[in-house]
Amino acid sequence: MVILVDAMGGDNAPEAVVNGCVDAILENEGFEVCLIGDIPKIEKILKERNYSGERIKLAAAGDVITNEDVPTKAIRSKKQSSMVLGFNLLKEKRGDVFLSAGNTGAMVIGASLILGRIKGVDRPALAPIIPTKRGGMLLIDGGANTACRALNYLQFALMGSIYLKGMTGIQNPKVGLINVGTEEMKGNETIKQAYALLSSSEKINFRGNIEGQQVLEGVVNIAVCDGFAGNVLLKFYEGAGNLMLNELRNMYNTNLLTRLSALAVKRYLKRIVKKMEPSEYGGVPLLGVAGNVIKAHGSSNSKAIKNAVLQAYNYARSNTIQRLSEEILFMEANEVERTC
Amino acid sequence: MVILVDAMGGDNAPEAVVNGCVDAILENEGFEVCLIGDIPKIEKILKERNYSGERIKLAAAGDVITNEDVPTKAIRSKKQSSMVLGFNLLKEKRGDVFLSAGNTGAMVIGASLILGRIKGVDRPALAPIIPTKRGGMLLIDGGANTACRALNYLQFALMGSIYLKGMTGIQNPKVGLINVGTEEMKGNETIKQAYALLSSSEKINFRGNIEGQQVLEGVVNIAVCDGFAGNVLLKFYEGAGNLMLNELRNMYNTNLLTRLSALAVKRYLKRIVKKMEPSEYGGVPLLGVAGNVIKAHGSSNSKAIKNAVLQAYNYARSNTIQRLSEEILFMEANEVERTC
Repeated sequence: MVILVDAMGGDNAPEAVVNGCVDAILENEGFEVCLIGDIPKIEKILKERNYSGERIKLAAAGDVITNEDVPTKAIRSKKQSSMVLGFNLLKEKRGDVFLSAGNTGAMVIGASLILGRIKGVDRPALAPIIPTKRGGMLLIDGGANTACRALNYLQFALMGSIYLKGMTGIQNPKVGLINVGTEEMKGNETIKQAYALLSSSEKINFRGNIEGQQVLEGVVNIAVCDGFAGNVLLKFYEGAGNLMLNELRNMYNTNLLTRLSALAVKRYLKRIVKKMEPSEYGGVPLLGVAGNVIKAHGSSNSKAIKNAVLQAYNYARSNTIQRLSEEILFMEANEVERTC
Repeated sequence: MVILVDAMGGDNAPEAVVNGCVDAILENEGFEVCLIGDIPKIEKILKERNYSGERIKLAAAGDVITNEDVPTKAIRSKKQSSMVLGFNLLKEKRGDVFLSAGNTGAMVIGASLILGRIKGVDRPALAPIIPTKRGGMLLIDGGANTACRALNYLQFALMGSIYLKGMTGIQNPKVGLINVGTEEMKGNETIKQAYALLSSSEKINFRGNIEGQQVLEGVVNIAVCDGFAGNVLLKFYEGAGNLMLNELRNMYNTNLLTRLSALAVKRYLKRIVKKMEPSEYGGVPLLGVAGNVIKAHGSSNSKAIKNAVLQAYNYARSNTIQRLSEEILFMEANEVERTC
């Protein structure tokens, strides 16, 4: 298997990306990596790491899409960017999965334009796993679509269910719709229509609306929302974790006694931090496009990239796309289309 | 001053409401409370508390609006409900401020229909204070409007600025627009239009887009969003706090050593919990309606009610409504209306 990696994408590229890939290669023997980007820069980092193995190939890209770029324009005009080249290499089957920590909007647009969508899918969606009281939960859409119509919510629920089933073995994942109240008539018009579609679908295990606090109680396996709410929530969650850790750090630094007391719980605290850390969860699949695409967090450090590479490997092996295409997703979509 | 209180609103009514009011009365001498609801039930709780003072009056209400009620229908049909009676008493100037922990949607509709909006305000908004790294920050809208147009964001920013100035003395509060990225072109069409309006207004100190994690870093004094995102975020924040506390509780209960170590930090931990606790922040004003209205959290315990009553007292004394009306808010609004 070949994992195509955008070496120039993300706040800490190319250092964190190249180092993360080397770490992943050293941890798992199942794949090769093709790093796409500025070859002299990449080679310099590989040299600093003393990496001399055969499992990393390089592909030259003379341009890069930044966070300041307007997605559609960037995909159309920056043909030599590491991201556009990555999508093209994936399309030409020169790799099995493409990973980037770059501009999210450009990734969504690039994947849709270059790879195309799976037949029947109206909008692709990002599907991150977030930590909850009862373990990981899938949030979909995590930021691919800043505005959605009712049908999209149903498709997110379907895609999320198929993906989670394949990756975790949960047979009939519980789906909740993120809303401002648990009662059926809560929310705006789009959300109410989404509720009606989700309730009437036999293909998902819909458990009704869930409110913000219930998301983290882990009452469902999949929480569905539009990409605006999803993205804001994800980043807010990071902020809440940082805020709590900051408070705890200050607390333990109060005096000698508190510093000593910290020693007793240090390893447990580390475990909590690890559990809550986004970098532990690696990359996020972009479900619904006709190719395996993994988005890593823009601020990924080398550890986050390593985990994202390993997840890209598992994702590519899971055959999610084939199952998405087969599971008559488009029939359901077409049925819905006629009714709403 | 008379504080009108819906004794029947909220998950723990009337017990928590009545007890919270007694606690507030005992803490501050500046006001009387008028409890609206089922008089025999209220009297029973007052008797159990041995409250025999003169500063609590009662007003009979034969009905109650529940969370299952559809807001507009409930306000129109349940004329004898404690909430509708509360709004009417406020309108008739039989009290200075109305407080309820009941159905949020019904409160927004009830206030708009019975009290009316301040001239020039398109949509009233809930303005909770949330804890951040650098102290409290105002979030607006916290859940009054599940769908907004661009103009609303500007009005939220204006109302929030005037309110915060009056309550805290911050002279030129920094305003951020919650978005999926910091760059100007991020977000959906409505958000982009809102960005343009906020940037061009001279009445607010706009600092651009802020992402989820920045909200909790406290980089601005006011974060503006629609009520859907705001409500989901607020509840998610509660959930994140609960999740972290749960993790810490489990950690400290691991063994004798960790239990002992907890003793060293116990009082500091309590301070953190208090800082993060929504019940400490009491009620939330509904800005933009022509009357002082405070919404308490639906799950308020007696402590949260006590804090909400004290906040209602401060809010009513702050003359926010008069300042909102005077500060040519409506002129700005009309100007904008012509351009977008």
